[in-house]
Amino acid sequence: MGKIPVGILGATGMVGQQYIALLENHPWFEVRYLAASPRSAGKTYREAAAGRWHLVKPCPDAVGALMVEDANDVSRATAAGIGGECAFVFSALEMGKDEIRALEEAYAASGIPVVSNASAHRWTPDVPMVIPEINPHHLDIIPIQRKNRGWDRGFIVVKPNCSIQSYLTPLYALTRAGYPISRIFVTTLQAVSGAGYPGVPSLDMIDNVVPYIGGEEEKTEQEPLKILGTLKNDGIENAAVPRISAHCNRVPVSDGHTACLSLEFAGSKPSVDEVKQIWAAFTALPQELDLPLAPKRPIILREEPDRPQPRKDRDTDKAMAVTLGRLRPCNIFDLRFTALSHNTVRGAAGGGILNAELLKAKEYLS
Amino acid sequence: MGKIPVGILGATGMVGQQYIALLENHPWFEVRYLAASPRSAGKTYREAAAGRWHLVKPCPDAVGALMVEDANDVSRATAAGIGGECAFVFSALEMGKDEIRALEEAYAASGIPVVSNASAHRWTPDVPMVIPEINPHHLDIIPIQRKNRGWDRGFIVVKPNCSIQSYLTPLYALTRAGYPISRIFVTTLQAVSGAGYPGVPSLDMIDNVVPYIGGEEEKTEQEPLKILGTLKNDGIENAAVPRISAHCNRVPVSDGHTACLSLEFAGSKPSVDEVKQIWAAFTALPQELDLPLAPKRPIILREEPDRPQPRKDRDTDKAMAVTLGRLRPCNIFDLRFTALSHNTVRGAAGGGILNAELLKAKEYLS
Amino acid sequence: MGKIPVGILGATGMVGQQYIALLENHPWFEVRYLAASPRSAGKTYREAAAGRWHLVKPCPDAVGALMVEDANDVSRATAAGIGGECAFVFSALEMGKDEIRALEEAYAASGIPVVSNASAHRWTPDVPMVIPEINPHHLDIIPIQRKNRGWDRGFIVVKPNCSIQSYLTPLYALTRAGYPISRIFVTTLQAVSGAGYPGVPSLDMIDNVVPYIGGEEEKTEQEPLKILGTLKNDGIENAAVPRISAHCNRVPVSDGHTACLSLEFAGSKPSVDEVKQIWAAFTALPQELDLPLAPKRPIILREEPDRPQPRKDRDTDKAMAVTLGRLRPCNIFDLRFTALSHNTVRGAAGGGILNAELLKAKEYLS
Amino acid sequence: MGKIPVGILGATGMVGQQYIALLENHPWFEVRYLAASPRSAGKTYREAAAGRWHLVKPCPDAVGALMVEDANDVSRATAAGIGGECAFVFSALEMGKDEIRALEEAYAASGIPVVSNASAHRWTPDVPMVIPEINPHHLDIIPIQRKNRGWDRGFIVVKPNCSIQSYLTPLYALTRAGYPISRIFVTTLQAVSGAGYPGVPSLDMIDNVVPYIGGEEEKTEQEPLKILGTLKNDGIENAAVPRISAHCNRVPVSDGHTACLSLEFAGSKPSVDEVKQIWAAFTALPQELDLPLAPKRPIILREEPDRPQPRKDRDTDKAMAVTLGRLRPCNIFDLRFTALSHNTVRGAAGGGILNAELLKAKEYLS
Repeated sequence: MGKIPVGILGATGMVGQQYIALLENHPWFEVRYLAASPRSAGKTYREAAAGRWHLVKPCPDAVGALMVEDANDVSRATAAGIGGECAFVFSALEMGKDEIRALEEAYAASGIPVVSNASAHRWTPDVPMVIPEINPHHLDIIPIQRKNRGWDRGFIVVKPNCSIQSYLTPLYALTRAGYPISRIFVTTLQAVSGAGYPGVPSLDMIDNVVPYIGGEEEKTEQEPLKILGTLKNDGIENAAVPRISAHCNRVPVSDGHTACLSLEFAGSKPSVDEVKQIWAAFTALPQELDLPLAPKRPIILREEPDRPQPRKDRDTDKAMAVTLGRLRPCNIFDLRFTALSHNTVRGAAGGGILNAELLKAKEYLS
Repeated sequence: MGKIPVGILGATGMVGQQYIALLENHPWFEVRYLAASPRSAGKTYREAAAGRWHLVKPCPDAVGALMVEDANDVSRATAAGIGGECAFVFSALEMGKDEIRALEEAYAASGIPVVSNASAHRWTPDVPMVIPEINPHHLDIIPIQRKNRGWDRGFIVVKPNCSIQSYLTPLYALTRAGYPISRIFVTTLQAVSGAGYPGVPSLDMIDNVVPYIGGEEEKTEQEPLKILGTLKNDGIENAAVPRISAHCNRVPVSDGHTACLSLEFAGSKPSVDEVKQIWAAFTALPQELDLPLAPKRPIILREEPDRPQPRKDRDTDKAMAVTLGRLRPCNIFDLRFTALSHNTVRGAAGGGILNAELLKAKEYLS
Repeated sequence: MGKIPVGILGATGMVGQQYIALLENHPWFEVRYLAASPRSAGKTYREAAAGRWHLVKPCPDAVGALMVEDANDVSRATAAGIGGECAFVFSALEMGKDEIRALEEAYAASGIPVVSNASAHRWTPDVPMVIPEINPHHLDIIPIQRKNRGWDRGFIVVKPNCSIQSYLTPLYALTRAGYPISRIFVTTLQAVSGAGYPGVPSLDMIDNVVPYIGGEEEKTEQEPLKILGTLKNDGIENAAVPRISAHCNRVPVSDGHTACLSLEFAGSKPSVDEVKQIWAAFTALPQELDLPLAPKRPIILREEPDRPQPRKDRDTDKAMAVTLGRLRPCNIFDLRFTALSHNTVRGAAGGGILNAELLKAKEYLS
Repeated sequence: MGKIPVGILGATGMVGQQYIALLENHPWFEVRYLAASPRSAGKTYREAAAGRWHLVKPCPDAVGALMVEDANDVSRATAAGIGGECAFVFSALEMGKDEIRALEEAYAASGIPVVSNASAHRWTPDVPMVIPEINPHHLDIIPIQRKNRGWDRGFIVVKPNCSIQSYLTPLYALTRAGYPISRIFVTTLQAVSGAGYPGVPSLDMIDNVVPYIGGEEEKTEQEPLKILGTLKNDGIENAAVPRISAHCNRVPVSDGHTACLSLEFAGSKPSVDEVKQIWAAFTALPQELDLPLAPKRPIILREEPDRPQPRKDRDTDKAMAVTLGRLRPCNIFDLRFTALSHNTVRGAAGGGILNAELLKAKEYLS
């Protein structure tokens, strides 16, 4: 019973590197196919990534020896073999949105499932945008997606933006416990790795904060509504609430997005103690299925007054748990707290891998 | 017509140093009296501050040569001469709150006006807490304060916390223009200089954010209500609005507090363009009186999408203007924007000096 | 065959915390005795360390439940039992040098071996200062030390300063291979954790470098001479060479000291390739004995032009290996390179534990 | 008597912006001609620099309104008028070395003197590389340069690399006082602004040091030899000494290069006190001519143990003075000290302007 061979599109980019690093020694998946821009194609990954590998963890030798293919050439992937080297792909493509959208569709049409980090298909109605602890049932749209498009084995599943990962699961936990939320104010303090490499210039981050990240507030306000939405006929219907207002800032932190939240409940309001109990007890399908990268406890609430902190909390439970703190009543809405998650693990490649583990467990990858 | 001689209590601390630096070449005031802890007393300021002067600007030679007195010994100040070396004092005392409260009262009782940065008397009903652009009329309580306490020439005036300086004047400008504000969400990203020296350890600020500053959220939520309050009989009655909910964070920035705000108007709502016009046109008493440290335009709105930034905007107009940016509609309340002010100038010593300039212009220091 | 019970003196300080963290799940040693200042005595470690635990890794539960003793009261340690809870101690005391010297001697006199991080006894002639890869034979002075002082079971062994850990082993490797070194220029770029907690103020490290660390250059220049010295009669005679000239700087890095070196050989000069081979092949007694915390390869030379870097290389091989790079001819001396080691692991608690492992392997702890 | 109209080649780049900022209100020069890449040509400078102006100081309005020309089209500059808008140019071109070399020659051939920051012509034998305090007499080669090339009014003068500015003047001061220097070890800790904008990625500078800057060590070792060289026939003959060995590092500092030096005198050796007197008394031609941007005292030695520091000392005397500290005997060579200068002012645009001021005073610009 060998591992499932997996490909990575955009393998030389920052998220591509994270996939490679996180998949080393994965119990189910094995990286066997790498694709990137034509410029990298035809080189070994070691050559193609020379001077561009920016992770602390070194590139695994086996991956370094793989030949890089041209990501635009889907036939290379199908030739590698759907049943062979490339049973499905993680898409960490870095191109224009329209190109990514078309290319991901081409892979899916060729029979290769695509688990994507790109934002291109997040608002495609029949493409599920999944956080496995929240809306695993959205995967049920895959048969409809296939039917809509005449695809056989392929499909596309995406994950949401990194900025919402730290707090959406805690909010969902409250909703699931009978306390739906109507409105949320959120201010994020986001790490520079979210902008990739080279990304944010040092001159903008030494002794400074930048109070703007292009497109980030829109994603932060809108993506939760699809994730919390409902399967309807041939698409996902957005939830009507919560209404979200976001301020997104870039701060001099390498990894780990922090978010300060105030929230208002739609109906009855839990006490602070009830919220603590709900979060402490929260587990969901990834925990029940014991998925390899699932955190044992998805939500960790710290009691110290000055946590969570990026440097101390981002790596909690394989960097897949979210860490919360400062839970207290709000002076205007009902509750306030601070939330933190690792943006390039839970918020990027780790989140993509957890989606793939869920797909495997639900037998979409066989 | 010589300059008014002024003393500084807590002269060796960080705010004391800022006073000394900002008062160099001041057209009205001249530092002639310095007081600090008994440990510094009897030394020249140069000796007392050796190894503790942390400003970029060097200590002026004339101040370095002054002898430091024991701040606890009020008789030294009165001996120095109310009409002589020490016509009034800036209090930058760093002690327990109760000790500061008592000591500031002792100076005032001895006939020496106290312009204070300390938080000790901020909630004393007959002590005005002043931002000169907002509530200069609160100084009218000084005669009542004197009568209440049987003081002759002395009095106490305080300034509010640094965290609210960046946005309270812009909000007041809207209120004054007929658009009172009912509710505010604010998240601050505060500089380390706000904690003094040595203050925040490097290990907490390298690659990190600390989502907590003790007491800061309470000050941020409550102090505006006194500043916006009304003179009543023998005290200041707090305003009922705006209701404020604050998240205060420490970030790796040396100087300059950033604040992200969402606000709701109590009644009619101005358009974004009206707000721009109100802010651009805003001046107040310090500008009318042409006070030396008053910024020409107290409120600067930047149109670039990524401003204000601490490193680029904190020093605007002698570091006394507040810089705003990102003005846009809010998804929940009415408007959102980002605000920035220099916390150790406008938010500390500069704010104190502007208060003293106002007091001088209103003839409270003669 | 239980683990050896070990005590930590100065358990609540930064290095004490590092010992606790690194000894969790140690195969040979188990923390069973904690001592700190009288202020902490009588509390559980969890209580005593509340608000002061600054490591990313949380405090192990079993250690948190231990009662903290007064480090000044040696009788508590002997009562705990030399054969019981406290077979030997790691000293991470933070007091005056004379007090530490006397207290470490008192523990040793009471029969408790002391493996110390403090600098107090580094220049005591019959106390070995040991880097296990370089001078494990200096432990042979322990019987003489015991005889000199009339001690029975106790003794004192110290480790050198963190600033020399990154390059002394590589230089020793060359010396051992027949290329003794006569002169060394070294400039260090040292991490803030070397100053403990709270340590270096943020205001000194944001957008800044401090070109001075008190006492550090002297240690950097002199300690290698004792480590490379020779056992003579009843003490260690310093080596005459290498002559070292050091510039020590503090830079905005959390962990990991970087050193830029130029070196001159005393006699014949190896080629760059020979040096590479010598370093690649280098192992010493800790590797031969397979000590638990010994790095597999103590010296890692990176070929990339821009390594070593603190953030990427400090954690190599349990943070116990040193990482080198930029090996090239020197324009004045013979060779240049850059060296890096983790200052609070290899340079502090990890180095102390490796010393203890060596002592255990050589049967000094039975 | 109007100001001399000056052009800037590469006006939209980081150094170009520095020129614009530093020339605002210059008593002798006025920016009247701007040239950049074809992409910027035809736009106003305000349009061309939109989103790319990275200085704290805003772009002067008059410059913002100027039309940007194509820097490749020399005829535009001559048309603007040698006696008109563009009497000479500052070259801050950012292209390939060969292109810059040819383009600067084309301007000079067209009659437009070129004062360059680029490294392209630093090693051209008849092009002087000038630090005005050290080798103003190298300008005497201009007539030879013109003759060599058949140029009439035009010529090329360059300034050296930013990494050597902090210490070459102090070393020259010692040489001039009769203490020539034979050998120098130098380790630099260089600011990120030296790499321009976007320059160094934040991910490389948060909690990190990069021990390598491409080409920087070569420049640091070789450029001083030309500056200290001798005019011979039709070129400049390099000095034979000092021999320099450099380690160049990038550190998380915005502006201000720090250098740690050890130096050996060729002959007799001054005492530390003599060195202090030599530096304190040092002035040179720019001070005698009272050039507008010349620092009053080019060399400032601080006595505090922990200076110079980038944040505190870089702006000394219009950021044109170099600040030294930690002067002490060296353990191997004769003396050690730490040196600091502002890399984008003294080390870039400010140095270029000082060169132009010297050229004006010596009547090369009439």
